[in-house]
Amino acid sequence: MNFKDRYISLQNKINYQLENYLDMDNFEHLSYSQRIIDAMRYSIFAGGKRLRPILLISANSMVGGCMEESIPLACAIEMIHTYSLIHDDLPSMDDDEYRRGKPTNHMVYGEDIAILAGDALLNMAYEIMLDNANGYLDNINNHLKAMSIIASASGINGMISGQVADIMYQDSSVDSDLLEFIHRYKTGALIRASVLAGAILENIDEALIESIEIYGNNIGLAFQITDDMLDITGTFEKLGKKVGSDKKNKKNTYPLLFGFDESKRRVKALIEEAIDVLEPFGDKAEFLKQLARDIADRQS
Amino acid sequence: MNFKDRYISLQNKINYQLENYLDMDNFEHLSYSQRIIDAMRYSIFAGGKRLRPILLISANSMVGGCMEESIPLACAIEMIHTYSLIHDDLPSMDDDEYRRGKPTNHMVYGEDIAILAGDALLNMAYEIMLDNANGYLDNINNHLKAMSIIASASGINGMISGQVADIMYQDSSVDSDLLEFIHRYKTGALIRASVLAGAILENIDEALIESIEIYGNNIGLAFQITDDMLDITGTFEKLGKKVGSDKKNKKNTYPLLFGFDESKRRVKALIEEAIDVLEPFGDKAEFLKQLARDIADRQS
Repeated sequence: MNFKDRYISLQNKINYQLENYLDMDNFEHLSYSQRIIDAMRYSIFAGGKRLRPILLISANSMVGGCMEESIPLACAIEMIHTYSLIHDDLPSMDDDEYRRGKPTNHMVYGEDIAILAGDALLNMAYEIMLDNANGYLDNINNHLKAMSIIASASGINGMISGQVADIMYQDSSVDSDLLEFIHRYKTGALIRASVLAGAILENIDEALIESIEIYGNNIGLAFQITDDMLDITGTFEKLGKKVGSDKKNKKNTYPLLFGFDESKRRVKALIEEAIDVLEPFGDKAEFLKQLARDIADRQS
Repeated sequence: MNFKDRYISLQNKINYQLENYLDMDNFEHLSYSQRIIDAMRYSIFAGGKRLRPILLISANSMVGGCMEESIPLACAIEMIHTYSLIHDDLPSMDDDEYRRGKPTNHMVYGEDIAILAGDALLNMAYEIMLDNANGYLDNINNHLKAMSIIASASGINGMISGQVADIMYQDSSVDSDLLEFIHRYKTGALIRASVLAGAILENIDEALIESIEIYGNNIGLAFQITDDMLDITGTFEKLGKKVGSDKKNKKNTYPLLFGFDESKRRVKALIEEAIDVLEPFGDKAEFLKQLARDIADRQS
């Protein structure tokens, strides 16, 4: 199967599994709170690329794991990512009206339901991972490690601190330490956790884990720099959200600090290293290598 | 040790452990996001009664468990409870300016940081429970069960659905099915989970688990009915929050639907049954029995 077909096939499998978790029939007993399920479904099925769950499944598959065991963690990480987008878009945060070409969650369901839908998705991620771990008691050590990696990346030592720094220093002058902090925590932590959590479900050498960690760090940073560049060069049609919003919100970005050419060079170098460190995995790394190239070339 | 001394001693131990988890020194590396740690600490140390963690530890101790193993779960459940209060108080939800006699989190830190502080506390609860479970691999089955009980009670099948129903049907006419749904899910679920999760850490008979479940259900409902009554009869000085806010927000409450006398009778019956079902535990149940009586008599 070529890269694109495999990517679409993984997307379909993830969407199918997310549909199972969020099937309205599962929640018939919640007679008075159906609206929050609608709100959760709205953002989960709003056309996300499924990058993080695909990274998790592919890293797991590269080291010999099977999808049946990894896909619940993959769906959990997509729920965590989606919750973070719903909360980031709120009026008191980035105040975004569109995401992926559609009105943001609070524009459709109101701020109260949007906040609770985010909370519910974060919590459901843990419900799903714990339930899954319970089915793999013979591999429980690795499941605990994988869940802890995801938990740590999602909290105060990860994504949340990135968002705090991002909103608190919007109007500050550009500073490379601050920019690195925001990139590393806000987007980088969860992308890194996706590949690490997938790989750690199998028993593999510490050295190989380190390679995968470098891969995760590099593509995470490359993804964010590309995101910053697209916010300047992209169009609403391609991105599905307002462009120039970083400038409007006076956000620190890589191209603003280092210029466009240097940003492109940096992405190229990060991706090259990410591809190189996967050499020990031979042919099995082909998909993740192509995914790294894709991140550098993406237009949306 | 008498009841009151033991309660205070447990409060002190929980506060000490929460202080360990939220010690500023743990977060020195988060140079740009210190403000969220302040916000998390503000609400965690705002003078909560620590009812849920004390229930968890006491149920665990009643069935032969040790506090070293249960206290991380107890702190986790207090973090989940606190996050839910921070989010419930937000302008787009209950819009409360005071809680426990102090300005609510968003009044001090702003809506954005308050939302993220809630998110971070919910997430940290899982970080702590997973880390703790990793130290008890010989009892991992029970830890997975306890974590799943807490996760389920905190999410869409518990607390969150209660809050959704509460805010969505504020202006509706009083309805006993709706009222039961809100009470059972919004407050009841997490109180029930506290005692169940504590007890399930030990290997005990299914019949005894059922007794503990009845105890949890009953004190949860009694707690909520008392809360509804205090909102009418209490004073700002005793409660530390605006009284009459349920009426202002046109909320369904037990005394509004069934009257004051019937509410008192109901609380009495619930507490009596809760005490009766603990008979099989003999003297070891003394503390939880007194705690049940206290819930009926509370003035704040």
